[in-house]
Amino acid sequence: MPRKRVYRSKKKLGQAPGSVVYTGERSKPKLVLEAFDYTKQSCTEKELQNIEESFEFKQTASVTWINVNGLNYVSEIEKLGQHYELHPLVLEDIVNIAQRPKIDEYENYLFIVLKMLYYDKSQNIVSEQVSFVLGKNYVLSFQEAEGDVFDTVRDRIRYAKGRVRNMQSDYLLYTLIDAIVDHYFGVIEILGDKIEDFETEIFAGNVNEDASRNIQELKREILRVRRAIFPLREMLNRIDKNETALIQRKTLTYYRDIYDHLIQVSENIDIYREMIWSLMDMYMTSISNKMNEVMKVLTIMASIFIPLTFIAGVYGMNFQNMPELHYKYGYHTVWAVMVLIFVALLYYFKRKKWL
Amino acid sequence: MPRKRVYRSKKKLGQAPGSVVYTGERSKPKLVLEAFDYTKQSCTEKELQNIEESFEFKQTASVTWINVNGLNYVSEIEKLGQHYELHPLVLEDIVNIAQRPKIDEYENYLFIVLKMLYYDKSQNIVSEQVSFVLGKNYVLSFQEAEGDVFDTVRDRIRYAKGRVRNMQSDYLLYTLIDAIVDHYFGVIEILGDKIEDFETEIFAGNVNEDASRNIQELKREILRVRRAIFPLREMLNRIDKNETALIQRKTLTYYRDIYDHLIQVSENIDIYREMIWSLMDMYMTSISNKMNEVMKVLTIMASIFIPLTFIAGVYGMNFQNMPELHYKYGYHTVWAVMVLIFVALLYYFKRKKWL
Amino acid sequence: MPRKRVYRSKKKLGQAPGSVVYTGERSKPKLVLEAFDYTKQSCTEKELQNIEESFEFKQTASVTWINVNGLNYVSEIEKLGQHYELHPLVLEDIVNIAQRPKIDEYENYLFIVLKMLYYDKSQNIVSEQVSFVLGKNYVLSFQEAEGDVFDTVRDRIRYAKGRVRNMQSDYLLYTLIDAIVDHYFGVIEILGDKIEDFETEIFAGNVNEDASRNIQELKREILRVRRAIFPLREMLNRIDKNETALIQRKTLTYYRDIYDHLIQVSENIDIYREMIWSLMDMYMTSISNKMNEVMKVLTIMASIFIPLTFIAGVYGMNFQNMPELHYKYGYHTVWAVMVLIFVALLYYFKRKKWL
Amino acid sequence: MPRKRVYRSKKKLGQAPGSVVYTGERSKPKLVLEAFDYTKQSCTEKELQNIEESFEFKQTASVTWINVNGLNYVSEIEKLGQHYELHPLVLEDIVNIAQRPKIDEYENYLFIVLKMLYYDKSQNIVSEQVSFVLGKNYVLSFQEAEGDVFDTVRDRIRYAKGRVRNMQSDYLLYTLIDAIVDHYFGVIEILGDKIEDFETEIFAGNVNEDASRNIQELKREILRVRRAIFPLREMLNRIDKNETALIQRKTLTYYRDIYDHLIQVSENIDIYREMIWSLMDMYMTSISNKMNEVMKVLTIMASIFIPLTFIAGVYGMNFQNMPELHYKYGYHTVWAVMVLIFVALLYYFKRKKWL
Amino acid sequence: MPRKRVYRSKKKLGQAPGSVVYTGERSKPKLVLEAFDYTKQSCTEKELQNIEESFEFKQTASVTWINVNGLNYVSEIEKLGQHYELHPLVLEDIVNIAQRPKIDEYENYLFIVLKMLYYDKSQNIVSEQVSFVLGKNYVLSFQEAEGDVFDTVRDRIRYAKGRVRNMQSDYLLYTLIDAIVDHYFGVIEILGDKIEDFETEIFAGNVNEDASRNIQELKREILRVRRAIFPLREMLNRIDKNETALIQRKTLTYYRDIYDHLIQVSENIDIYREMIWSLMDMYMTSISNKMNEVMKVLTIMASIFIPLTFIAGVYGMNFQNMPELHYKYGYHTVWAVMVLIFVALLYYFKRKKWL
Repeated sequence: MPRKRVYRSKKKLGQAPGSVVYTGERSKPKLVLEAFDYTKQSCTEKELQNIEESFEFKQTASVTWINVNGLNYVSEIEKLGQHYELHPLVLEDIVNIAQRPKIDEYENYLFIVLKMLYYDKSQNIVSEQVSFVLGKNYVLSFQEAEGDVFDTVRDRIRYAKGRVRNMQSDYLLYTLIDAIVDHYFGVIEILGDKIEDFETEIFAGNVNEDASRNIQELKREILRVRRAIFPLREMLNRIDKNETALIQRKTLTYYRDIYDHLIQVSENIDIYREMIWSLMDMYMTSISNKMNEVMKVLTIMASIFIPLTFIAGVYGMNFQNMPELHYKYGYHTVWAVMVLIFVALLYYFKRKKWL
Repeated sequence: MPRKRVYRSKKKLGQAPGSVVYTGERSKPKLVLEAFDYTKQSCTEKELQNIEESFEFKQTASVTWINVNGLNYVSEIEKLGQHYELHPLVLEDIVNIAQRPKIDEYENYLFIVLKMLYYDKSQNIVSEQVSFVLGKNYVLSFQEAEGDVFDTVRDRIRYAKGRVRNMQSDYLLYTLIDAIVDHYFGVIEILGDKIEDFETEIFAGNVNEDASRNIQELKREILRVRRAIFPLREMLNRIDKNETALIQRKTLTYYRDIYDHLIQVSENIDIYREMIWSLMDMYMTSISNKMNEVMKVLTIMASIFIPLTFIAGVYGMNFQNMPELHYKYGYHTVWAVMVLIFVALLYYFKRKKWL
Repeated sequence: MPRKRVYRSKKKLGQAPGSVVYTGERSKPKLVLEAFDYTKQSCTEKELQNIEESFEFKQTASVTWINVNGLNYVSEIEKLGQHYELHPLVLEDIVNIAQRPKIDEYENYLFIVLKMLYYDKSQNIVSEQVSFVLGKNYVLSFQEAEGDVFDTVRDRIRYAKGRVRNMQSDYLLYTLIDAIVDHYFGVIEILGDKIEDFETEIFAGNVNEDASRNIQELKREILRVRRAIFPLREMLNRIDKNETALIQRKTLTYYRDIYDHLIQVSENIDIYREMIWSLMDMYMTSISNKMNEVMKVLTIMASIFIPLTFIAGVYGMNFQNMPELHYKYGYHTVWAVMVLIFVALLYYFKRKKWL
Repeated sequence: MPRKRVYRSKKKLGQAPGSVVYTGERSKPKLVLEAFDYTKQSCTEKELQNIEESFEFKQTASVTWINVNGLNYVSEIEKLGQHYELHPLVLEDIVNIAQRPKIDEYENYLFIVLKMLYYDKSQNIVSEQVSFVLGKNYVLSFQEAEGDVFDTVRDRIRYAKGRVRNMQSDYLLYTLIDAIVDHYFGVIEILGDKIEDFETEIFAGNVNEDASRNIQELKREILRVRRAIFPLREMLNRIDKNETALIQRKTLTYYRDIYDHLIQVSENIDIYREMIWSLMDMYMTSISNKMNEVMKVLTIMASIFIPLTFIAGVYGMNFQNMPELHYKYGYHTVWAVMVLIFVALLYYFKRKKWL
Repeated sequence: MPRKRVYRSKKKLGQAPGSVVYTGERSKPKLVLEAFDYTKQSCTEKELQNIEESFEFKQTASVTWINVNGLNYVSEIEKLGQHYELHPLVLEDIVNIAQRPKIDEYENYLFIVLKMLYYDKSQNIVSEQVSFVLGKNYVLSFQEAEGDVFDTVRDRIRYAKGRVRNMQSDYLLYTLIDAIVDHYFGVIEILGDKIEDFETEIFAGNVNEDASRNIQELKREILRVRRAIFPLREMLNRIDKNETALIQRKTLTYYRDIYDHLIQVSENIDIYREMIWSLMDMYMTSISNKMNEVMKVLTIMASIFIPLTFIAGVYGMNFQNMPELHYKYGYHTVWAVMVLIFVALLYYFKRKKWL
């Protein structure tokens, strides 16, 4: 059953611009807040009860990462936004989960929206929105619900693995985006497996009438992945071009690395697209081939037995004066003729390679 | 029944350029004029009897919004145009409802044409032209007929909701365009529902011969929506690029927000396009599959009964010397042979998965 | 019958570059020359006997329009060219009617080639070449034959209607091009009607085997119109970009207006293209649907009567020992069985929705 | 039989870059060298025995054209190259006939490669490579074999026709390229005729099974022509953009003229491409229509005679108790019924427009 | 059997960026290290036991080429990387064999990744990654395994053939890339042969049901080659544009030469793509044509014998009063009629060109 694919992008019709209204399904989970504050030497990790507990970190010179799960807690997000002086449109975008991946530059911070992709239990691709705000020495991240792909990042901060503790907030943002992009590979791998399984089946001739529906479903999954990934490419391109003071030159090399990975993912997606179009062609061809086979059976059966039946019909006629009927071997002769015709037609079809 | 889709873009052939001639159907409704004039502190709202009543607002430093409904009242529009010193081509474009969405920059004002989209009662997409003139402290708006999507904007001005009363005319223009773009989402939502309903039906195999016509209609609706929306995108892009004194830097952020929404709408439209092409493919496949099924039935029936008929024909022959006819169990043997052939053929078709 | 579509673009093979050779059909009409010379106050109109009579206007400060009909009068055109010091390649291009719409900038004048489009009596699109030379205070125009779309322009000059008498030669050129572009709308309107008539017919199922030929013809007409119109767009774009002293800033606004109209025409053409492709699809689908219908009739007839014939055949056998033949109601029982089978098969096909 | 279409682009694998190795078929014709040296006043023409004889012209201030036929005479070409101080890669490219049309700028000369196109006797398109080196006062040209399209250029030099004797080497190069491009029109004219002949045949319904092969051949010819012509376009564009001292401003106008011609040729080629795709569609449609016709014949014949045969079968049954058999007009009644059925079915098919 | 086509692009999920992890199959061959160090006068060639032996060459002013085979020897590569002060991301990319061809510019060196293409014994295209690091006077090269296309380069260095010993490291890099690109021609030649063989078979009508699978395989091979080659083009373009001190002006000419070759290869690939799409079309057409033939046989057989059988059936009826049965020549008359019908139908089908 196809599901909704268009979301209202914004507040209810007629609401003033900048109204912060959560657009996901209201039955979303509880608010989970966590904060990291670290320098090369030390690291503070804190599970927060309310957003105000995070405010103390703003003053520190150390790098702060505040991660908010639960976009339906609009008022908490607004409080955080006011504390960090975010533009109302930024807050509106954070809680509007139909946002397209994008980057917006403001005077003191960068605002980035992107999509986390994963397969859920029923093998459907889920696309969850994640927003980041990158400031001079902080990163704010916002997710729809608890559960993410950042555990390895947390470990690296806690145990000072890799470079992250030696670097600034721009590098922290990089590791977070990198973790998300890394998961894209997993998604397209599964997608690729599906296509190949399907291709193998078509090669084996096991195509039932659901095939065109399955092809349709695959096309749609690819569309969904494309939509999440392609704008990101252009976004990273802009990061590379724009000389923003918030991302240092030396960190740019890392962002360029993500960009390379995205190009790879995109190329794979485009190859999948092309493969699916080919699959559709192959499916069409296989239908035609099947029809051909059906027609051949009919033609062979009809072409052989219709003439024979005609002959039998002739000698079933009741004319008084039919001399053949009285010949001693008339019956046997007719049989012989019929066998001859049978064999001749078989030979004919054999030569045409229909048998 | 397909309707006209090409409109004469301009005055009658041979009229001088800059002739202000209304190109819609003449049987259009009465003239409705309204004016708002507001500052942060106060707001004057006025239903006007004639256009001259609005002239007093031009002098005021406050923000003025004059809204004209009824493009067939050409002379009123010309008077307003002269008062605000609009270029003749601008007036010509205002009353020519076949205008493509565009932005033109003049020395003292910006001229913007766009399309309001909605579904009418008979579920056809209607595209109504709206023009705006943005001056230093005024916005003029022109609509074909009464009835629009601006009620929420009026309320916000009247009751000083949101930011609008604190801002200049550029922000007013933004809220008006925003209201229009907001309605696009409603339109593509309905469009999306149509496509999905149709898809579900094709999945269910309920495709009659109207299907290709319906697909055609959907394609055309999408074309119409594309035509209204795509030029807008490029128009907002130009607003963002061009440094016009009429739109202040801080308001540009809001325009960029509309741009983001338009990109979202456009992407959805492109996805719909692709889905419809796929639907056509699926429909073709389903026709082929049906034909296959028809052929199988024919082939099975013919292949089974034609040989049996032949056998019956043989023993209907009237040869004198046909020994089998005189065997006691000749008849029963023939029946046995025929049943055998029947079963063998059934088995054959079963194995071929035609049954 | 398809007609020639490639013209030799230039002089006979091997002729020196810059040879002024007329490439249309030689049997072209007589030379018609006319000249207008006007200022705000006065206007001289003159039918010329030979081209030399126009030379006096060159010295005047007033705006001069010399219109030449009959490109086969090469020597007259060369004389005019020498008088106005046109480059040999310009003269070559003027008389070569296979020219692509283009603009060339020379030091003292602009050279513009474009196509006038109209339907002739036999409803074929005709594309006639018109060239313009725009100088400081003159416009030269060259047409293949008498008869054009400029009558309204002439009237406006004669009777000082509109702005034309108050403006310079650049505005005159604008009104001339505008008159041509205005006629494009008429052409695409007819084209649109043709497509819609055809679509209505396909919707109604009245498609004979000429359909694919008609689609082909429509495609070709659209190609021809595209070829005439699309280069013009880019040409006007260049006028807008290039800062040439020959076209004043304030006139540019008018040229931009033509550009807008061309965009509208182009969009319509692209929509028609897409619609024709869809028509082809619909036509293919309708063929398949018809075949399906044919097959169903065959299958139903054959599937019902072949088994019945078999039964009849069985009791036409001549075995001595066939007990059923001697039953009193044997014959009636067989009829009953046959009717039963008949009804059962009818019911089966009904349920399959084949009836 | 399809022919080779990929050539090794370069020297044998592993040869050092810059090795001058001829890549055409070795069995090529004899070396033909000719030289022209001219000023406005005088002209020397000389058939050379060996390449050294041309060296004297280098010193002269007059314009020199040295034309080399026979790319297999590698050593002669190398000598000429050394004398004119050409880069080794230039020499390599001259003798490598799989070169793509291109322009390379060196310090003292321009190197240009392009393709001469013509139909050979067996109506196959032949593409022969021609290279030019344009220096301050000389043009070197290199062709695979004797025989070319330059005779008119030679005449113009010999007899001082046109401008060529008054101009520099850049104008000479222009006339040479112009002569080649002029021949492109001839080639696409023939191509156009082929397509139209073929179209006429498809319109007439005379399509045998070779049709798809012919379409294929046409597609390939167009590909070949495209490959030769399209890079040239971009090449001339570069000449126009790049301010090289070797081509004077006033000569650029002429090059722009070639560019215009190329655009025209390219457009025609693209139109042909589109027409061929349409032809393929038409061919597919005509196959489907033919199948439809075949099916109709079968369906009509079978649908009419199968029920009639059934009736005959019924009264061929041997039941003892078949009262109808004993009616006096039983036989005639059955005939009447059968004729009725026959007529009814004919009428039915008539109404369905199958007859 | 389709194989995996998506590789994880990077370290295991969650590894820190910059982790150097080999991503190929671990069962890879032994480490082979070789070093060349040469000037115009002398040349040292050395097979190395461990990477440290190569360190001495870094100090020398002569050109050094260190070639590493065996990307699974990660620690050796890291040592080399530290010695030459390579960025961690470079090392990561070297051992990640799913890298897309690219060029990265660092302060003191260029990093280049590309793909070596060849057909293995089972005629599958293999794409092996090769990375280069170009420094002031050294080139490092990294290959997955022993065995490459560089033997001719080695010989040229050893025996001072060609220019290589007179030039710097940038020229060495050029000869290495040139050797790889040269091999692309071999690969596309084989690809071209495959396509043409296949085309010949389709022309000859020998298409079995594997055809669509073969077309599929060919499409995929072309995709794979495209993926390896197309990014290279853009890479060389960047080398040409970017003014890097590491590649001298005079060497750029050579790189431009590679670029020309790549354009040629790319064009061939695009032609192949188009040809394969055409093949698919031809295959579809050939299926339809075959079906047509099958249908014709059926139609002819059925249309001829069904009416004849009907006639025989009529005179097989058992009515008492059938006068024809008692005519002396009734039987012969019926035969005559049947022969007549037979001939008439044969003539009909002949005229329709079905026979």
